Amino acid sequence: MALLSCPTRHPSIYHLIFFSVYLLFASILPILDGLVLGGDGLYREILRDETVLRLKELRKISGGEGYLERTFSSPASIRASDVIISWMKDAGLTTRIDQMGNIHGQFEPANSTKEALLIGSHMDTVIDAGMYDGSLGIICAISALKVLKMPGKPQVIAFSDEEGVRFQTTFLGSAAVAGTLPESILQVSDKRGTTVQDVLKLNSFEATAAALGQVRYRPQAGVCGDSWYCSPMGMVALAHDGYPLGVVKGIAGQTRLKVIVDGSQGHAGTVPMKLRRDPMVAAAELVLTLERLCKEPNKFLSYREECGCFTEESLAGLVCTVGELLTWPSASNVIPGQVNFTVDIRAMDDKVRETIVVSFSRLVLQKCDDRLVDCAVEHKHAAAATPCDAELTAELERAAGSTLSMMTPTAPASYRAGAGETPVLMSGAGHDAMAMARLTKVGMLFVRCRGGVSHSPEESVMDDDVWAAGLALVNFIDYNATAES
Amino acid sequence: MALLSCPTRHPSIYHLIFFSVYLLFASILPILDGLVLGGDGLYREILRDETVLRLKELRKISGGEGYLERTFSSPASIRASDVIISWMKDAGLTTRIDQMGNIHGQFEPANSTKEALLIGSHMDTVIDAGMYDGSLGIICAISALKVLKMPGKPQVIAFSDEEGVRFQTTFLGSAAVAGTLPESILQVSDKRGTTVQDVLKLNSFEATAAALGQVRYRPQAGVCGDSWYCSPMGMVALAHDGYPLGVVKGIAGQTRLKVIVDGSQGHAGTVPMKLRRDPMVAAAELVLTLERLCKEPNKFLSYREECGCFTEESLAGLVCTVGELLTWPSASNVIPGQVNFTVDIRAMDDKVRETIVVSFSRLVLQKCDDRLVDCAVEHKHAAAATPCDAELTAELERAAGSTLSMMTPTAPASYRAGAGETPVLMSGAGHDAMAMARLTKVGMLFVRCRGGVSHSPEESVMDDDVWAAGLALVNFIDYNATAES
Repeated sequence: MALLSCPTRHPSIYHLIFFSVYLLFASILPILDGLVLGGDGLYREILRDETVLRLKELRKISGGEGYLERTFSSPASIRASDVIISWMKDAGLTTRIDQMGNIHGQFEPANSTKEALLIGSHMDTVIDAGMYDGSLGIICAISALKVLKMPGKPQVIAFSDEEGVRFQTTFLGSAAVAGTLPESILQVSDKRGTTVQDVLKLNSFEATAAALGQVRYRPQAGVCGDSWYCSPMGMVALAHDGYPLGVVKGIAGQTRLKVIVDGSQGHAGTVPMKLRRDPMVAAAELVLTLERLCKEPNKFLSYREECGCFTEESLAGLVCTVGELLTWPSASNVIPGQVNFTVDIRAMDDKVRETIVVSFSRLVLQKCDDRLVDCAVEHKHAAAATPCDAELTAELERAAGSTLSMMTPTAPASYRAGAGETPVLMSGAGHDAMAMARLTKVGMLFVRCRGGVSHSPEESVMDDDVWAAGLALVNFIDYNATAES
Repeated sequence: MALLSCPTRHPSIYHLIFFSVYLLFASILPILDGLVLGGDGLYREILRDETVLRLKELRKISGGEGYLERTFSSPASIRASDVIISWMKDAGLTTRIDQMGNIHGQFEPANSTKEALLIGSHMDTVIDAGMYDGSLGIICAISALKVLKMPGKPQVIAFSDEEGVRFQTTFLGSAAVAGTLPESILQVSDKRGTTVQDVLKLNSFEATAAALGQVRYRPQAGVCGDSWYCSPMGMVALAHDGYPLGVVKGIAGQTRLKVIVDGSQGHAGTVPMKLRRDPMVAAAELVLTLERLCKEPNKFLSYREECGCFTEESLAGLVCTVGELLTWPSASNVIPGQVNFTVDIRAMDDKVRETIVVSFSRLVLQKCDDRLVDCAVEHKHAAAATPCDAELTAELERAAGSTLSMMTPTAPASYRAGAGETPVLMSGAGHDAMAMARLTKVGMLFVRCRGGVSHSPEESVMDDDVWAAGLALVNFIDYNATAES
């Protein structure tokens, strides 16, 4: 089944906004509960109860023992695909799985109008993940279509890879749909030396350049195409503690580096401190250098002089992370011979990010010279900041606001305020929308989570916020599909 | 077969001293070579050629592909045991393997005099090891006994674990022989959760507390016991660049810690720098704190005030190492939830080492408080500095000096100087002699290596130095056994 649309402004969006004050909202719950139990058109059973139940079911499908892990095309991912397909069918959707493992669901008859509205998120997870990231976007979209039963324009999509954990390159699924995934991706290897091609073949996909090309979303004869998608992600937005929903005006740009530090391996007891070329202490210094660079950029570098473009606003959202560090040979009584680590740099402003990358790379070489170790900085991934479509964002804002008005006529002031003023935010996390923006207009909806924590088993979203998100999606699709089809 | 002796002063010793100037000695080689080819009583074929050949053979037995690794009771270690037993038999020794996998070799008839002289080293290696550490001590001892054919007093021992890589607790083999290994060791687990008991059983040992007790070296009826052993290790001794052999007056004390840093796991793109509780940056700061503490202790801490015992001499040999650091969950786009790392602290002066351990532990808590992460310091291993026996050391010095005189009557001045003045050094590396010193008097012989590098595939010893070490051992055993039996 093809995903059809014209290049107008109509992707819809689902996304998590993870606000930080969970307890505050516990006091609102009874009010919501009272309202909704007696309310009309709020679809509590599907949009809240069944959605939450399915989130818990999907949580159980993991490749890790005692923690959640579903990397691209792993056996756990394949099991998750089967379950998601069964839920799409339960909603009345016709399903198909494409050559990169993305799952597509649509009501028959297929869209024959000028537009398509793609809604969904990603199936894969990080290692030791939370239960909402990705899954919530898929299940909420399925629930919204189950409620609406609206053939034609709206479609659900579940992408096979957004996190990029296994192959260190994000958006395998969505980039293939957007038609921007290079053929060379088939030869990229994971840590065990297994290539993307190997795992696709293992799961009975063709794994050829031609098959990859077929995944691309194409307009049918005489019809032009439009698609979108965003995955639920965590976000701290302290200024908006009171708002269950938010919309996204853009996604931060991202650079991933690998830093390799080669020193002189030796016996921990015999090489005097002053004669060491120890890559561990050099790497530790670089980790702290990166932190300082991103935590207090104005103190650390003279940005104004270097680029003339760094304002308080452009620096907002700058974050840098070392998530993985490996020592070799990794024995307590051996000075390591090599240490390498990953670097993740994100910023709303692409010039800020690029300047940080250049400054850090220069500092790496300088500090490695000082310590007489050999360092290399490999560029693994880079993505420019992605603005969301202004009209789509406005429509989502309206849908979120009206949803909250429906749910909270007697709620406390902070909640009522939210009803009319859904916050519009930047997203620090990467999303499939970054890939899909190459193909079409994109927009995203956020749902708050406790403490802004994501990519962690501590990820937590209130059941009523899941419900509010589903209802906002129903409102958005209904308005959008009715107004534009 | 029992290892027999009285508690007098007669352990013999073999050990490597790894001097740093390799090229200097290349110029001496032709002189040595010319001398020895025509010389008498220098046993070149056994002490040099066969010993070097066997070192290369043992190098090939590894559990790692492309690098050397033989950890305690691994399949590679068992294969190495078989080869070592065959070499002992070739030398005419009767062999037995004890319940901790140590191999013992002795000429029949067994010793019935008051003393035993135990010579040897360890079979296990670090990960990505060099070919000399441990192996040289075992093979040289076998070669020396093959030359001497002297029943009774001298014996060879090959210990099963000195490095402690697999179970993070050193001296499994020698501590069992010394009778100081606690029964609880059987329940200690490696990284995969396999216990010492499991691996012993897997290799058909009894793996009971009683069997462990039987490994202890005990005097037979009416005969009191004495044993020793030292493993060849790397050592930089810049002041003694010209000397192929050295003797050891003592071994540095050692403390092994594990530092566990718990932070708040989160998404690399969504948690602002200022709100992070990132265990990776905290760990990096602790790694650098440890380095500063050990590199410039006088600048970092007011030692004099704290303990009144820190002199230039007592601080010599203070070294601190972080050899292994692990991140969890180890993904480039996730702020780690936990980072832990090993700490290895060594010093000749026990008070210095203990003060560094206390100071570091205090700084860990202080810096972790500052960063709002939770830290714990686990004490994994501690061993006091071990002095070698003064008389044994003097005998070894005499044997080394007379060996070099035999080999170098026409050598350059720097070499001739070495003949009469074998350097007497402290060892920064841990050795089985630390465990054996609980049972008996110990002494150690060192052989120089290129650049002082050990615990690395770059470990390099000249063939003629291997020969000199073997000959010194022959001299020592011959004198010792003849004079005292």
